[in-house]
Amino acid sequence: MNDYKQTLNSYFEKVNSRLDELLKFSPSEFGVVCEAMRYSVENGGKRIRPVLVLESCRICGGDIESAVDVACALEMIHTYSLIHDDLPCMDNDDLRRGKPSCHVKFGEEYALLAGDALLTYAFETLSKANISDDKKVRAIACLSSNAGFGGMVGGQVIDLKSEGKEISYDTLRLMHSLKTGALIRCAAQLGCICAGASDEQTKALTEYANYLGYAFQAVDDILDVVGNQDILGKPIGSDAESGKTTYVTLFGVEKAKQIAKELTDKAVGSISSFENNRFLVTLANELTTRKY
Amino acid sequence: MNDYKQTLNSYFEKVNSRLDELLKFSPSEFGVVCEAMRYSVENGGKRIRPVLVLESCRICGGDIESAVDVACALEMIHTYSLIHDDLPCMDNDDLRRGKPSCHVKFGEEYALLAGDALLTYAFETLSKANISDDKKVRAIACLSSNAGFGGMVGGQVIDLKSEGKEISYDTLRLMHSLKTGALIRCAAQLGCICAGASDEQTKALTEYANYLGYAFQAVDDILDVVGNQDILGKPIGSDAESGKTTYVTLFGVEKAKQIAKELTDKAVGSISSFENNRFLVTLANELTTRKY
Repeated sequence: MNDYKQTLNSYFEKVNSRLDELLKFSPSEFGVVCEAMRYSVENGGKRIRPVLVLESCRICGGDIESAVDVACALEMIHTYSLIHDDLPCMDNDDLRRGKPSCHVKFGEEYALLAGDALLTYAFETLSKANISDDKKVRAIACLSSNAGFGGMVGGQVIDLKSEGKEISYDTLRLMHSLKTGALIRCAAQLGCICAGASDEQTKALTEYANYLGYAFQAVDDILDVVGNQDILGKPIGSDAESGKTTYVTLFGVEKAKQIAKELTDKAVGSISSFENNRFLVTLANELTTRKY
Repeated sequence: MNDYKQTLNSYFEKVNSRLDELLKFSPSEFGVVCEAMRYSVENGGKRIRPVLVLESCRICGGDIESAVDVACALEMIHTYSLIHDDLPCMDNDDLRRGKPSCHVKFGEEYALLAGDALLTYAFETLSKANISDDKKVRAIACLSSNAGFGGMVGGQVIDLKSEGKEISYDTLRLMHSLKTGALIRCAAQLGCICAGASDEQTKALTEYANYLGYAFQAVDDILDVVGNQDILGKPIGSDAESGKTTYVTLFGVEKAKQIAKELTDKAVGSISSFENNRFLVTLANELTTRKY
């Protein structure tokens, strides 16, 4: 457990300090959009996606340093999606992790542009990462296909279309698989690309990430009902209020907890063939027993 | 002139039919966003940027076919920027080329996502284009840096900040250089990358594109005052109404016309070293004597 925390902190540190460098812009006529980009990236959460990039790279025998820029690019994509998700025409959220969301702080037009600029900058960052051209192209293909209409954006569309409606478990799974799952699977795959992993390694880590994503979502749904507002940093009960279909509305809290546990076990099972998989095992268990 | 039109039509045809293929999606749960992407790309204008990619590639001795996907990716970026520009929190335009703009047709949330998806798809398209990995990486670096905070998005910020204010000629030039100029210069550079052009060729074509962009903008400003609404497909006088600083407000119509002519001559002068530069010479002259 101490090893886990140490490794987690070192990944966190690497990603945050590189993001800090990448988002240090010189003053300019258009500084407000740079400030907004920086504001939202710095208001970071658990950095699960970049952590998963780095650890997937390491566990496949790659050099973590070569994966740091790739991890940062993925986090930029995640952050842009949160900025646009919070906009009035989408979820209309005034708060993000306890701080004013980007459009509340900078205005809607600059939040829109900051999201666009972050999305664009993610690909600029990948094009300049410290890996071979071949790996860059594969990383860009992986990130773009998972972030676009057939991935994350597609999931957002299903989410929008499901608003206020009861949806089936299949639709819920498809939505999660795209809206949050696509970038989490992508994280594992990006790490594999950086490391030059084998197809079997990539398959196993993608499966791990896939179950991890579902489990993460189930826990989110549970915490929205039984969580502690102060620890979570956001009000509970918002899902019920908006009439969202969740693991809890479909199965109740206890069954949802059981499903989350099963999904976590499946995630862990997927990586049984890796030696030194302790970090990923602990990560899965930590994420699904978390209180926030 | 007939040669010019023939070539222009063949470029137009190549780009449109490839865009059509690239945007043919299978039916899905998230089809509405694909439909919105397609709607906006199909409501195409002059396709100046892709045409410039193809001709820059040809004039540097490259194979045009290898540049078609790159040209389409650039047009996707241009189209996403129009979709987001038309949104209520930006220019709030209900019409785009005489048709309902994307958010009027599909709703604000889907227009936002269609823009995001097109921006993302542009990079996916580049990552799969029929050129070497080395060229793909250079094309992605070129497109992302010109489309992002230091290019087109930066120009949009200056435009927003200038709203309803009189700005200096220097600021106007900087705004044009970024907001529209960056993608036009990028078009020339992308063609050069596909062709494996020399540094001198790239420099000359970038200069051409740079002047062409300014001239194009000056003509736009003039047409907004003296144009024919029916031919233009949009109301005239909108610049004056919104208190925008333009070439006309700064210099008056006659002087603005003279500046447009000078900029066109400079564009043409930049490519004097190319044999067979007739197409680009005619393109510059056509764009600046256009009535729409």
